[in-house]
Amino acid sequence: MTLGRKLRLGMVGGGPDAFIGEVHRIAARLDDRFELVAAALSSNPEKGLAFAEKLRIPRAYSSFEEMAASEANHPERIDVVAIVTPNNTHYAIAMAFLAAGIHVMCDKPITTTLADAEGLLAEVRRTGLIFAVTQSYSGYPIVRQMRSIVQSGGIGKVRMIHVEYVQGWLATSLESTGSKQAEWRTDPARSGPAGCLGDIATHAYHTACFVSGLKAESLSAELTTFVPGRRLDDNVQAMIRFEGGAKASLWSSQIAIGNENNLNLRIYGETGALEWSQENPNYARYTPLGQPTQILSRGGGALNAAASRLPAGHPEGYLEAFATLYSDLAELVTARLEGRDPNPSASVLPTCEDGVQGLRFIEAALQSSNDGTAWKSLR
Amino acid sequence: MTLGRKLRLGMVGGGPDAFIGEVHRIAARLDDRFELVAAALSSNPEKGLAFAEKLRIPRAYSSFEEMAASEANHPERIDVVAIVTPNNTHYAIAMAFLAAGIHVMCDKPITTTLADAEGLLAEVRRTGLIFAVTQSYSGYPIVRQMRSIVQSGGIGKVRMIHVEYVQGWLATSLESTGSKQAEWRTDPARSGPAGCLGDIATHAYHTACFVSGLKAESLSAELTTFVPGRRLDDNVQAMIRFEGGAKASLWSSQIAIGNENNLNLRIYGETGALEWSQENPNYARYTPLGQPTQILSRGGGALNAAASRLPAGHPEGYLEAFATLYSDLAELVTARLEGRDPNPSASVLPTCEDGVQGLRFIEAALQSSNDGTAWKSLR
Amino acid sequence: MTLGRKLRLGMVGGGPDAFIGEVHRIAARLDDRFELVAAALSSNPEKGLAFAEKLRIPRAYSSFEEMAASEANHPERIDVVAIVTPNNTHYAIAMAFLAAGIHVMCDKPITTTLADAEGLLAEVRRTGLIFAVTQSYSGYPIVRQMRSIVQSGGIGKVRMIHVEYVQGWLATSLESTGSKQAEWRTDPARSGPAGCLGDIATHAYHTACFVSGLKAESLSAELTTFVPGRRLDDNVQAMIRFEGGAKASLWSSQIAIGNENNLNLRIYGETGALEWSQENPNYARYTPLGQPTQILSRGGGALNAAASRLPAGHPEGYLEAFATLYSDLAELVTARLEGRDPNPSASVLPTCEDGVQGLRFIEAALQSSNDGTAWKSLR
Amino acid sequence: MTLGRKLRLGMVGGGPDAFIGEVHRIAARLDDRFELVAAALSSNPEKGLAFAEKLRIPRAYSSFEEMAASEANHPERIDVVAIVTPNNTHYAIAMAFLAAGIHVMCDKPITTTLADAEGLLAEVRRTGLIFAVTQSYSGYPIVRQMRSIVQSGGIGKVRMIHVEYVQGWLATSLESTGSKQAEWRTDPARSGPAGCLGDIATHAYHTACFVSGLKAESLSAELTTFVPGRRLDDNVQAMIRFEGGAKASLWSSQIAIGNENNLNLRIYGETGALEWSQENPNYARYTPLGQPTQILSRGGGALNAAASRLPAGHPEGYLEAFATLYSDLAELVTARLEGRDPNPSASVLPTCEDGVQGLRFIEAALQSSNDGTAWKSLR
Repeated sequence: MTLGRKLRLGMVGGGPDAFIGEVHRIAARLDDRFELVAAALSSNPEKGLAFAEKLRIPRAYSSFEEMAASEANHPERIDVVAIVTPNNTHYAIAMAFLAAGIHVMCDKPITTTLADAEGLLAEVRRTGLIFAVTQSYSGYPIVRQMRSIVQSGGIGKVRMIHVEYVQGWLATSLESTGSKQAEWRTDPARSGPAGCLGDIATHAYHTACFVSGLKAESLSAELTTFVPGRRLDDNVQAMIRFEGGAKASLWSSQIAIGNENNLNLRIYGETGALEWSQENPNYARYTPLGQPTQILSRGGGALNAAASRLPAGHPEGYLEAFATLYSDLAELVTARLEGRDPNPSASVLPTCEDGVQGLRFIEAALQSSNDGTAWKSLR
Repeated sequence: MTLGRKLRLGMVGGGPDAFIGEVHRIAARLDDRFELVAAALSSNPEKGLAFAEKLRIPRAYSSFEEMAASEANHPERIDVVAIVTPNNTHYAIAMAFLAAGIHVMCDKPITTTLADAEGLLAEVRRTGLIFAVTQSYSGYPIVRQMRSIVQSGGIGKVRMIHVEYVQGWLATSLESTGSKQAEWRTDPARSGPAGCLGDIATHAYHTACFVSGLKAESLSAELTTFVPGRRLDDNVQAMIRFEGGAKASLWSSQIAIGNENNLNLRIYGETGALEWSQENPNYARYTPLGQPTQILSRGGGALNAAASRLPAGHPEGYLEAFATLYSDLAELVTARLEGRDPNPSASVLPTCEDGVQGLRFIEAALQSSNDGTAWKSLR
Repeated sequence: MTLGRKLRLGMVGGGPDAFIGEVHRIAARLDDRFELVAAALSSNPEKGLAFAEKLRIPRAYSSFEEMAASEANHPERIDVVAIVTPNNTHYAIAMAFLAAGIHVMCDKPITTTLADAEGLLAEVRRTGLIFAVTQSYSGYPIVRQMRSIVQSGGIGKVRMIHVEYVQGWLATSLESTGSKQAEWRTDPARSGPAGCLGDIATHAYHTACFVSGLKAESLSAELTTFVPGRRLDDNVQAMIRFEGGAKASLWSSQIAIGNENNLNLRIYGETGALEWSQENPNYARYTPLGQPTQILSRGGGALNAAASRLPAGHPEGYLEAFATLYSDLAELVTARLEGRDPNPSASVLPTCEDGVQGLRFIEAALQSSNDGTAWKSLR
Repeated sequence: MTLGRKLRLGMVGGGPDAFIGEVHRIAARLDDRFELVAAALSSNPEKGLAFAEKLRIPRAYSSFEEMAASEANHPERIDVVAIVTPNNTHYAIAMAFLAAGIHVMCDKPITTTLADAEGLLAEVRRTGLIFAVTQSYSGYPIVRQMRSIVQSGGIGKVRMIHVEYVQGWLATSLESTGSKQAEWRTDPARSGPAGCLGDIATHAYHTACFVSGLKAESLSAELTTFVPGRRLDDNVQAMIRFEGGAKASLWSSQIAIGNENNLNLRIYGETGALEWSQENPNYARYTPLGQPTQILSRGGGALNAAASRLPAGHPEGYLEAFATLYSDLAELVTARLEGRDPNPSASVLPTCEDGVQGLRFIEAALQSSNDGTAWKSLR
């Protein structure tokens, strides 16, 4: 039997000033597999209800607690909740909706402590519900193709990875000028103990692991706060050792003037290499040992175009990558509702385990930096 | 009074094998201002009805004639129809829906002859309805910013334009291998007398006029068919003269191996220059006279970010550009329904006049090429 | 028997303010096959003699006439003369040194009229002397590799060429501000009737012919003078037809703000394509039909590194390309002196025939532009 | 009084199979301020004498000892000796020529131990002779312009540096296939204890210090040998701390397939940023805080073109950068012979102190890596 309807989506967070909430809404809409039917859009109930009305969301709630309780028993309850609030609230919200039997799409980092993340994972395992994490860069078609190339031996055994995610927008004390985006990201109460580390270095780390398929063993990290008065790190340097002997250099910064969202990944194996940059995401460079470098194009001839909506040369971007995560989730949830196996391509969607690994990275980096860059375990 | 609802969209064309129909559907959905409620998706009624069911479109029709007649009197009739069929059918479909009092979003070229295009324009003027044309590249935020820079004198009086739109996918006789996309584009019965000229050279021409704001005066063109057996041109060279003395070189090709959708525009004025390429559409190059070249970034600091959905560095692509045309149209239609003036930014949406100008370009190029590249008027 | 000495080089032109004279001197020195022993460096004898002393050139002359006469009978007379004066004097100087039995390296255009160029060619043929032309871009290793790829069928039969050489330094009336480089290039008395056309469009034309190996048949050209008061063209648009059906678009400009020496060549054949840009000259792009684009690197693995001095990744530049022309000439002259066949790789050095073809291009473009872009023969 | 002659250059090393010896010869010749008059080109006397004859070097010697002894008393003794032998011989050769009163141009690393380097520095100070080191990348005009921009406050106080020098040519065990270039670089007896570290990471380190003007304080490094059987490191990761709080990430590798000589430097200050890549060395990117990124061009309008031989857009390369070091040395030596102050621009030429700092970097990195990446002093 087929489901015969769109999935019902709920959202917690994503009020009028939020950036990522609107990204989620567009992404969920893009491939037409979700309808947004319930929401608690703000910690300020009045603001949240008014914005829900403006967005024509049928079931608006004053709080996530009210929403979870009400949806749990709703005859047309939501299939999935998207959690798009500041980091420090993810844990409680996720636990509430898991308890209500609802699948989760959660922003990263999934919690602000490793202990919470592990608690969440235990609950996910106990309930058997689907818990996806918006490690958004894993949704880019070329990133997935790079992963396939590595998996199929196209660069041989991986030796060295260089990954960076650098921005320049926090090169000054933007948080003291009223910027909401800067404020919560540099506030330990809302972001947890990691600044740049939790905000974007985790994306670099996840993307490197996602494409290489490697398991990290340990790291040595140096966190720096360059902007006077800032309360969290704004620059991250790390060296990482993987099982099997591969190594990585990671650099992430929010004070690198001239960079916008420069997530750049390079992977070198025994018989080839791959390179990709998020700011021009439709192309990658592939060099088989002893041959000229090739330009791989999203949707281009020789490549699997599965995750792509347009022919090569018509660029897709960040929203499409994000939408691919939603479509993967739609496939996983629909398959479960229909009692069938999901399309295997959806299985790359980042899970709660990935979220836990992200927290492990954050805690190890904080400890290493506090301990004079001593090596800390990532297992 | 505010409208308080999404606009109702209908679609003619866009069956299961079509590329551009799905682009229209995603684009119309992206900013959440339309719902697709009626459609005649295929010239094969059975196929069209089945596909409409799959897409959950409430009102499915067997033909555009039936659809126009029925919608004309529907209590919740569609506000806008999207015409996404082969070129040779645009005219009849557009005329039918204009007669039904329905606004139009039409693919380019709007007809296959200049006479038809002028007939359509007369009807648009007579009815007072809104008629928009999907000159999609005008929806890119950076393209609009370039237009603003030119209008505000940022490069001085324009002297020289170099524009090209080159592809390589028709370098072999793809149309004889069963490719539907290649077949209709190289078939004079469906595409009209222009091949590469009507398919993509018109985009290059429109983008050049859109950004420069110049009015073309005359052209000299050389059309070539390089692939043996092909029935339409696959390569276009042209020199264009504009009012006021500016000139342009235009090159468009579908046999340029290694190019995907390489629309590239460069404009040189008395005091500056601009350059943009569609395949990496979030950036442009701007050189004020005597200063270093600058990289302009979509959404970047100094620029008007109005048409942009994401912060700089998170790339947007072709679907977002296309969606911007739909949002402009939503604004124009909604404003009319609400009895107010539309937001001025929506006024750049290409109109039937632009469509007529596109046909004028096509006919002049065909005549010039047939006449040994003699200069032909574009006025 | 081997020559056992460097070749003796003379120079006419190349005074203290000249740009290209110094380029010749460095280029001749780079591979250590020439010593500069004689010179008439300026049309102003005093200035020329003083500068020759400063450069420690042993035999300094007051005029080229004196130099030609004296060298003709010198026991260690120069083997080669480099002619690096303004265009209008090339003819007389070249004739004088040919009469003296001396081989010639001449700047382009070799004369200011086609008739003179043909006269020069007749004299070259009569004397049997070597006459080389500094079509400098043909000295780049990657340009020669592209030529080899085309010759060996790597892109199949050539269909379409797009070549441009655009600069921005003459976007204002620089010639009225005392710039010597701008003055002579915009002065019909010294440059002949062609401005941008003779200065740089000829380079674009030659490079296209050199790499493609095609013979041009006819052209249609539009010359424009954009800067008020300028006496020669500063913008050139042309369409070219070749024997066998290939076509080219050529654009050259000196008012394209933001461009320095942007010579860019793209060649499309039936089974592949090549692209190269002079401003990053150590790399080219090669796309075999149906395969990803490859980055070819000067000196890189798969390629003939014959003309290259450094391993891949250590860039060579314009001086090295120029020096390669001198080394080719050294090989041709030395082989003759040693009574052996020259190394075949030196045979690509541009000759007086190439110089004549350059003038044919210039005259045809002038005529076409004066005649409303009517097609003119290039044969 | 002016010198009135070229400087006399001697060379030790640079036999027929050497790469860098020929680079030195071309570089010394390029600006016409040296003549190569004496040489001991090989540790194999026969081979060295034969090659010297082929190169027409007047005074050929069987060994550097013989050469130093003979030149010390020659009436026209060499002004400068270039030492271009494997690393392990630099010390003895340099000491011999300093003892003979001859200025030195020495390849890097100047010795294989820090103790030797300090010994050499003591001798340089004692003799008062000029000792230059071919940190070749400091000769690129744009690199010098970046240094000037930093010095004049163009990016504010430096915070973060990211520098890398990555190659791929040693991704396999090339040294076991007979490649001479690979053999000596991976042989501890000839290269010393550092592989990639001494060969190219030192260039990255020097370039970062040269442009930033910062003094390094300490480092943490991880050296890896990825290729089985290789006797020296082929991958270097390091974190560096500078006086005043700036930090750097450094990565250098010879197993990074697809990279040729990818030396890439990025510097971020409080009010701006700079970026440069050696493989396209005529351009840099400069971003003042809050403004668009600018493309700086070698010789371009706003910049000091002092160190440049060609107008912007005609690329210079590695040989020209190397030649600039020779011309700086010529200026320093000539000024001393003429009893005047040298042109201040020549003062940036790397010195024996820079060489010592290079060894300090190498030894600290070796110690840190052996000690589990513990931080080691660089002072």
